[in-house]
Amino acid sequence: MNVTTESVWADLEKIREQAPLVHNITNYVAMNTTANALLSLGASPVMAHAEEEVEDMVKLAKALVINPGTLSKDWVRSMHKAALQAKRLNVPVVLDPVGAGATPYRTRTNAELIAAAPPAILRGNASEIRAVAAALGVAVATEEAATKGVDSQHSSESAVQAARSLSAAYGCAVCVSGATDYCVQGDRVIGIQNGHPLMSRVTGLGCTASALCGAFAAVNPSPWLASAHAMAVMGIAGELAAAKASGPGSLQLCFLDALYTLSREQIARHLRIGG
Amino acid sequence: MNVTTESVWADLEKIREQAPLVHNITNYVAMNTTANALLSLGASPVMAHAEEEVEDMVKLAKALVINPGTLSKDWVRSMHKAALQAKRLNVPVVLDPVGAGATPYRTRTNAELIAAAPPAILRGNASEIRAVAAALGVAVATEEAATKGVDSQHSSESAVQAARSLSAAYGCAVCVSGATDYCVQGDRVIGIQNGHPLMSRVTGLGCTASALCGAFAAVNPSPWLASAHAMAVMGIAGELAAAKASGPGSLQLCFLDALYTLSREQIARHLRIGG
Amino acid sequence: MNVTTESVWADLEKIREQAPLVHNITNYVAMNTTANALLSLGASPVMAHAEEEVEDMVKLAKALVINPGTLSKDWVRSMHKAALQAKRLNVPVVLDPVGAGATPYRTRTNAELIAAAPPAILRGNASEIRAVAAALGVAVATEEAATKGVDSQHSSESAVQAARSLSAAYGCAVCVSGATDYCVQGDRVIGIQNGHPLMSRVTGLGCTASALCGAFAAVNPSPWLASAHAMAVMGIAGELAAAKASGPGSLQLCFLDALYTLSREQIARHLRIGG
Repeated sequence: MNVTTESVWADLEKIREQAPLVHNITNYVAMNTTANALLSLGASPVMAHAEEEVEDMVKLAKALVINPGTLSKDWVRSMHKAALQAKRLNVPVVLDPVGAGATPYRTRTNAELIAAAPPAILRGNASEIRAVAAALGVAVATEEAATKGVDSQHSSESAVQAARSLSAAYGCAVCVSGATDYCVQGDRVIGIQNGHPLMSRVTGLGCTASALCGAFAAVNPSPWLASAHAMAVMGIAGELAAAKASGPGSLQLCFLDALYTLSREQIARHLRIGG
Repeated sequence: MNVTTESVWADLEKIREQAPLVHNITNYVAMNTTANALLSLGASPVMAHAEEEVEDMVKLAKALVINPGTLSKDWVRSMHKAALQAKRLNVPVVLDPVGAGATPYRTRTNAELIAAAPPAILRGNASEIRAVAAALGVAVATEEAATKGVDSQHSSESAVQAARSLSAAYGCAVCVSGATDYCVQGDRVIGIQNGHPLMSRVTGLGCTASALCGAFAAVNPSPWLASAHAMAVMGIAGELAAAKASGPGSLQLCFLDALYTLSREQIARHLRIGG
Repeated sequence: MNVTTESVWADLEKIREQAPLVHNITNYVAMNTTANALLSLGASPVMAHAEEEVEDMVKLAKALVINPGTLSKDWVRSMHKAALQAKRLNVPVVLDPVGAGATPYRTRTNAELIAAAPPAILRGNASEIRAVAAALGVAVATEEAATKGVDSQHSSESAVQAARSLSAAYGCAVCVSGATDYCVQGDRVIGIQNGHPLMSRVTGLGCTASALCGAFAAVNPSPWLASAHAMAVMGIAGELAAAKASGPGSLQLCFLDALYTLSREQIARHLRIGG
């Protein structure tokens, strides 16, 4: 089991052929962006959050992406319902714990979602992963627990250690995003070194990474490979976009165009895997 | 009553001169996109969904667009309130039954909205139109009732038949979007053959088509003509955009630019009407 | 205290260095747009509206931006909670009374927010400012009280008079947006004459102006200077964008690129201050 140009490309082709339905319960900021990214990638997004329909929608879906970035009580209830249904039906769940550590409500909500229905893939930045690990008692809280916001890009040793602990406790793949994206499952760790600093100036690209994890999990039975493939495609498309962009505005559209036209050759030329 | 370059252009000029206020109760994914499309077209969008104000907002509006794409209980209640107020005040209503057929909740909600306050224009893709027709008992449910998602582009004989039945039962114009967009009212059917496949890779363009139906219904007393004009402008702007775009990201912005600059000559050159 | 190239540039550099966290409780239409504008400017946006967390989020923030553009009961309750917490902690509050005057619910809600917790900066278009002034009894209601929508760009004598009265009564800076943006505090008035008509064809740019007021208020203790600096940067970036854009679609992305790359030289060349 290894991340290579072939393995990334094989999954991307499957997504483009099968157009898997990815059910998103996500935040208001990133809804449009993530739907467009999934469409550009070749998947079929659907956004649905009503308690009355989430269980039915999960039945139709090949993956469920939960992102409580603009959480509130009703939405959290639907997230629980949908996640439990997905577990029952073996639909892979991706959780993006946006802003965990910033407020107690966010930290607690994300910890409760993980405890109630452990996701196949948990993807966040370093401070978010550390915050949920501390809240779940699988890692020691650090003084840095209160994040500065939701756009932190800094990764670290301690976050990878927290990811290992979360993976061991909940059996999930954990992806820590940053300059290098670390994908952890059990004792496997891989670092994806793609991406571009300008990406941190576009809102919702973290959320987009999680949505892409959903699309890859829909076609690959290994959550670990799926998360690594998603981060690779994300980062490579970001680099291709940054090469054409004049700022964060044009980056956003160039990124969607790059996802849509991404070729085997581009993956081969750009994929950078490291420690 | 016929759809010609002259008839499309006359309505477009009216919209640009009058800037009619179009009140939208629409989904989170498409709110920004549809507001921008209405502004680019020349209309004045307003988004308002609170039970406390929808009836007052309808009083100011020249059209009401209802799109339960990310529906929930409170929003549906406001949609009913707004639709009934619009009927009382003779404000034309457009309904976009997003994802009808995908879950029972969506199918039921859309059917109830139609039954309670028949819209002037009902616009959806083939599976959505078939699903609401079946739910309302005016067409036989097919095995295909469960849609794959909300982005189906495939049109069909049976959907046009369902549209005829809906139009006969509720007196509304029904538009079935697809490679060819069929606009039906009574025994009139027109097929608009504009558009581009890349449009299906941008989220919310179906919702945008419905919003544009609202703008045209604000200036044209015939819902049938209004829907056909909207689909023509939509499709032509999409073609012009696709000719400049490098993918779905750039298509989205080129589409808005094309709506803003659309000329009589471009309509004359591109309009394609057929069976 | 004067608005000059130096004063605008000094604040912009502070925002880029400090990346202040700006907490937004804003509308669905503009969430993505305003988050991207804040990121392009150099600030750190966070969107959070749940009653359970707004007080905790305000603790982390350097400014709070309240925009009830798609208001509903629960959100308004959170807005009050957040605004009161901000007052307790001396976090500057910006209020954008979107659509005040259009419906009684909007007018009342905005008036109540001002009365309960006077903002540091109130920013709206002429009809919105007149409507809240009339509702709060500090100006005479005019026959024009019912706005046509939320995109009015026309400014006027009477709005500046209403702004003066509001400023006197509530101690806030009041900014009336239009072809000229008037920033009023006490007996100081300044007119910023930057901007471009095409900006009125992009949704959410008024909301973006208010979000930028938040970023500038986070680094400048004078709400009046902060609002004038924000409007200057807004207008100059809009002019630079309009020079490159082919319509409203490309304007939106060029605007974000321009915010990101805005230089001291561009400010010096474009800044236009007048009566």
